[in-house]
Amino acid sequence: MNNPAFADRISDVPKSFIREILKVAVNPEMISFAGGLPNRDLFPVKELQNASNQVFETAGKEALQYSNSEGYLPLREFIAKRYADKAGLKVSPDNILITCGSQQGLDLLAKIILNEGDDVLIEEPGYLGAIQVFSVYRSTFVPIPLLDDGLDAKALTTALQSYRPKLLYTVPNFSNPSGITYSLEKRREIAAIIEGYATILVEDNPYGDLRYRGEDIPSFKHFLPEQTILLGSFSKTAVPGFRIGWIVAPDAIMDKLIVAKQAADLHTNIFTQRLLYQYLSDNDLEAHIRKIREVYGRQGRAMIESIRKHFPSDVHFTTPDGGMFLWVTLPPQVSSMKLFDLAIKRNVAFVPGNPFYTYPVENINTLRLNFSCVDEKTIEVGIAKLGEAIKELLGN
Amino acid sequence: MNNPAFADRISDVPKSFIREILKVAVNPEMISFAGGLPNRDLFPVKELQNASNQVFETAGKEALQYSNSEGYLPLREFIAKRYADKAGLKVSPDNILITCGSQQGLDLLAKIILNEGDDVLIEEPGYLGAIQVFSVYRSTFVPIPLLDDGLDAKALTTALQSYRPKLLYTVPNFSNPSGITYSLEKRREIAAIIEGYATILVEDNPYGDLRYRGEDIPSFKHFLPEQTILLGSFSKTAVPGFRIGWIVAPDAIMDKLIVAKQAADLHTNIFTQRLLYQYLSDNDLEAHIRKIREVYGRQGRAMIESIRKHFPSDVHFTTPDGGMFLWVTLPPQVSSMKLFDLAIKRNVAFVPGNPFYTYPVENINTLRLNFSCVDEKTIEVGIAKLGEAIKELLGN
Repeated sequence: MNNPAFADRISDVPKSFIREILKVAVNPEMISFAGGLPNRDLFPVKELQNASNQVFETAGKEALQYSNSEGYLPLREFIAKRYADKAGLKVSPDNILITCGSQQGLDLLAKIILNEGDDVLIEEPGYLGAIQVFSVYRSTFVPIPLLDDGLDAKALTTALQSYRPKLLYTVPNFSNPSGITYSLEKRREIAAIIEGYATILVEDNPYGDLRYRGEDIPSFKHFLPEQTILLGSFSKTAVPGFRIGWIVAPDAIMDKLIVAKQAADLHTNIFTQRLLYQYLSDNDLEAHIRKIREVYGRQGRAMIESIRKHFPSDVHFTTPDGGMFLWVTLPPQVSSMKLFDLAIKRNVAFVPGNPFYTYPVENINTLRLNFSCVDEKTIEVGIAKLGEAIKELLGN
Repeated sequence: MNNPAFADRISDVPKSFIREILKVAVNPEMISFAGGLPNRDLFPVKELQNASNQVFETAGKEALQYSNSEGYLPLREFIAKRYADKAGLKVSPDNILITCGSQQGLDLLAKIILNEGDDVLIEEPGYLGAIQVFSVYRSTFVPIPLLDDGLDAKALTTALQSYRPKLLYTVPNFSNPSGITYSLEKRREIAAIIEGYATILVEDNPYGDLRYRGEDIPSFKHFLPEQTILLGSFSKTAVPGFRIGWIVAPDAIMDKLIVAKQAADLHTNIFTQRLLYQYLSDNDLEAHIRKIREVYGRQGRAMIESIRKHFPSDVHFTTPDGGMFLWVTLPPQVSSMKLFDLAIKRNVAFVPGNPFYTYPVENINTLRLNFSCVDEKTIEVGIAKLGEAIKELLGN
């Protein structure tokens, strides 16, 4: 048989450039700002082991059997309670579906909402995983530029008048890749703009707990309670390897999500759902998150200080209030792909901006830096080398 | 906002009637032949707990971090070696993708192969989970009747001449729902028929290890090495709650499957992949499977004997050589939905045949019985009650 005829949808999906980069970054000599991984030294290994033994001893058989598609109810109740306590949001456990990471939440949502060619509004630069998912469902991207305080409201208004977008995808807190956070004012403004349109606002919030400066800003769901879908994840606060995330949606959407979940994989691993719930019951998640925030905050500040010291003054960069990333804009004539080659020779890796756009960009001059996995001293060394490479490209 | 406009694909997905039935079946008085669950009393709880502690102690941080989309390499090597040892099949670990149950393998395959309206050949009666997945991708079903020795070859030939199916979906060993196994002769015949057509044969084999009578029959991959895709699962042999299955595909298809997997959920839970691999390394899976086979075999034989004793002689039923199910065909005038109502009153549950067809069937006279979770004595009691109910409907 010759090669099979593939579905049209798969031909449009961008290959992950990051996967290729990460292969380079495994060299132990390499200082890598390329990844997007949580810091493994902060994983609560011992506590999770204790929780695992608890589950085996108290619920062994049940924790290993097939389970329901919605997800483990006590875990959904924990998530609902935390929304109430931390964000003042009233969410019923019935409106929470446990997914294999928030990535699956996004996949299921796209699956039940998007027909081929449907318009999707997305931040520019935007989250790579979202671009991949929406590409699979062959949506038409309408990118809206991110300003320092969130989406460009004027561009959003124009887009809503010109297109009929079914979804607006946002990462309002410490966005990947930009590190940008939407201001309170901007959130109000955007909510007022999209209210009345048949556009669902997707608030993806994997990093929201990792704020190391300033105060939490209310969720879009406060301003658009019926028009907002929330995506959440334990990957950045507890453990990524379990692939446990969730999606919060109104009843009518939740019904369809559950059907799609069932067809996709029946249900999320019930053993690790129970294990995670046991861990959350026996330990103080908030105290654990404070530890992560402290480390990432120190490293984020170290990166910003190093950039100020070592990068030419016409390089623009974001100064995030939390999360794991910052975003660098080089002078227009400097290609971040060329910088990548020079940096790799100096054993420093990062991700050039390309994969965060919904279309091919030539001579891209932006890049993403990650600071969650490199200690402060090494950050200074790596940023200094990167500064040298930029200066070499600028001909200074 | 009013209800959102959903994607066309989700409107076509049948709701799971089984989910509703299982809600009835939780009543502890109920004798349930309705489920499709492995017997939880056979789960290797202690051995899995030991393996879990091993993983936490030897690989804690790595087992909790993000991982690759392909799946844990030692686990893929184990699967490859087992194909060689048990089935004489040469499969490279590079052609194995670990998925969240084999259900996800099917979803990813459909996603990369099927455009809307593409034809899919499927057994009738066929696996409900496959019908759901193919419905999501809006394929056109071409059902091929199952005879006692496998697919109706004549109907298959006609279908291949009349349609351009991209996939032929089969469960050749102890099928769900029918319990039917394809004979060696039938496998050769089917392979000869579809060779030369651009149709991929999907061999879904979740029950293949659970043979309690006769000899293993070679996989379709022996006869159609480049045209066969294999789906496998640890759910029926080790543990369902971990959701660990796999798909075996040629290089060109595997490349696309990995892209689709990445967009769907990045990767399968790495902690439980490692836990399962540790369990498989430290224990004898084949000895464990022998235990399952012995129990299911006893229960399957008990069900067949009870049916012979208690059902009217014009009721037809399959006599499976393995697996968890058998399939009953009532006299044409007897509705299995009506039987269901009478049976529930007698505290016996089963699944009427409807969800295993790709179109609505009125006055269906078929039904599925599961024997993996009920002991022999209870099987006799339940089948006797079901026999009474059938006789009542027949007016005897």
